Amino acid sequence: MKNTQILLAARPRGFPDETCFRVVETDVPTPKAGEVLVKNHFLSLDPYMRGRMSDAKSYAAPQPLDAVMIGGTAGEVVASEDPGLAIGDRVVGMLGWQEYGVASAKALRKVDPSVPLSLYLGALGMPGVTAYVGLVDIGAPKEGETVVVSAAAGAVGSVVGQLAKSRGARAVGIAGGADKCAYVTGELGFDACVDYKSPTLREELAASTPGGVDVYFDNVGGVVLDTVLPRLNTFARVPVCGLVSQYNATEPYGVRAFGAILVSRVKVQGFIVTDHMERWPEALRELGRLHAAGGLRGRETVAVGLRNAPAAFFGMLKGHNLGKQLVDLR
Amino acid sequence: MKNTQILLAARPRGFPDETCFRVVETDVPTPKAGEVLVKNHFLSLDPYMRGRMSDAKSYAAPQPLDAVMIGGTAGEVVASEDPGLAIGDRVVGMLGWQEYGVASAKALRKVDPSVPLSLYLGALGMPGVTAYVGLVDIGAPKEGETVVVSAAAGAVGSVVGQLAKSRGARAVGIAGGADKCAYVTGELGFDACVDYKSPTLREELAASTPGGVDVYFDNVGGVVLDTVLPRLNTFARVPVCGLVSQYNATEPYGVRAFGAILVSRVKVQGFIVTDHMERWPEALRELGRLHAAGGLRGRETVAVGLRNAPAAFFGMLKGHNLGKQLVDLR
Repeated sequence: MKNTQILLAARPRGFPDETCFRVVETDVPTPKAGEVLVKNHFLSLDPYMRGRMSDAKSYAAPQPLDAVMIGGTAGEVVASEDPGLAIGDRVVGMLGWQEYGVASAKALRKVDPSVPLSLYLGALGMPGVTAYVGLVDIGAPKEGETVVVSAAAGAVGSVVGQLAKSRGARAVGIAGGADKCAYVTGELGFDACVDYKSPTLREELAASTPGGVDVYFDNVGGVVLDTVLPRLNTFARVPVCGLVSQYNATEPYGVRAFGAILVSRVKVQGFIVTDHMERWPEALRELGRLHAAGGLRGRETVAVGLRNAPAAFFGMLKGHNLGKQLVDLR
Repeated sequence: MKNTQILLAARPRGFPDETCFRVVETDVPTPKAGEVLVKNHFLSLDPYMRGRMSDAKSYAAPQPLDAVMIGGTAGEVVASEDPGLAIGDRVVGMLGWQEYGVASAKALRKVDPSVPLSLYLGALGMPGVTAYVGLVDIGAPKEGETVVVSAAAGAVGSVVGQLAKSRGARAVGIAGGADKCAYVTGELGFDACVDYKSPTLREELAASTPGGVDVYFDNVGGVVLDTVLPRLNTFARVPVCGLVSQYNATEPYGVRAFGAILVSRVKVQGFIVTDHMERWPEALRELGRLHAAGGLRGRETVAVGLRNAPAAFFGMLKGHNLGKQLVDLR
């Protein structure tokens, strides 16, 4: 039985392309004691992967060249050498860009088979917990406050706004284009959404946040960040989750409104979800309750087949996806 | 008896000049019940005053035109209509740029006559408490960590470094020129100091912080901030106290290394000391103990006579002072 894998072949400079990746066929591996073999059903594509492809200083070691690309996966146990997991169990892990993977049973999370498996790569997985840690622990919105989130139609942003609403805050999204904005206010139930591509972004943001901004959950950085900073209220909080506008920039954007941090006594805090493993159980409980109550909506954009993962990844970096970007490997 | 006062005559655009101020002579006022008349011995000149001269959005209402310029003062009660203060008592308050002032007794702090009065405008006053709140409450340096502070030879910066040392941290200053750097490492006892005017600032900062930077107490913003950000260690803290490099800029500087906040999961927090009145008693106790133990040194730069206050103020904005900038009004 053969296993298709995608390796990192070369580090990109600027926007990545197909030459960064190489598809290979290998033998499906055999689990050792304490391990299981998983057939991956879904691969998650996430912005952080762009950072790992580079060898610039980052919060994690770079992805090694000629190794299977890192990535979150959800699948089914097809062979087990661990008493804790049985064939047929559904598991979530970090098996990377490949159809099959072997992992220690301890490194996998067994999930509820009555919930659609792909949700564990989105609102009920890493993106959901990311939204929770940034919004609840750093942003800490109070009832009636205004929460703004960029990349609002994405996997993290869509959960941020819905969590904010469920906690009594006002949710304002920033997204790219009228279709995404309609999705954010319609399907996701945000109070407002502004299009960052609009030439009157500044005015539209002001009109959508008449009481100013108390929490800005930043996924994008750059000019959008610079536009939101002057709207911040006194003692506002800015969880910095991503800077996707900068990941492919060869020259970094200069943030001109930094002075607002002093004038409004703002707290700006960068975070990554894997620093906060102790928060996952509580986050997943709240997200699970919210999902069960119908308060956690979101579409998925699904590419079919591992060989289409690179193109889907490039599209996600350009914002072509609506909601969570997945690859269906079945 | 006449009272010399300096009023704000016009709002500056860019760097202020003498036309922004107007000197007037008025009658010395008479205190009402609950008030005292103070003869000011010292006027404090501080960077925040530049912000108040402008009517751009800031954390405080702008200084009104044609009113006495705001400012911290230390002096002696010369007439009292309040049982809590007697003639001859030494008091600190906010009586502004004038020789005499009337204030409610409640708005004045009676101070220890055995301590040089001017210290209550520096290390044992607002600048000292500013250093304390930013360093201890936001920066929270642990023993052995590295604290970097800009404007290290100034009233706030000099206390930041000495407080950091007293708490077991390594103190690295950034100051303008070799003389200031020699003062910072010599008289103030910092472990190192780098000259921000040096063309090799980046390399010198790296050499002075071989273990990276855990706390950056920022008084200046701009290119110095941009140079320190990439040196920050994981989970570093950046109290933002001032952005003096920007106060006279007509075009704001664009901060290019903002990405370090995410990569190193940094907390950046703007603050002003008057938001933290509840911290003053504890701060003043620790600063008083440190001063009594000889651990709180610092020079003063003193202009003589109120009419010289504007020139001294311009000089301070250009960094011509060493330590606390005062005007002697006696």
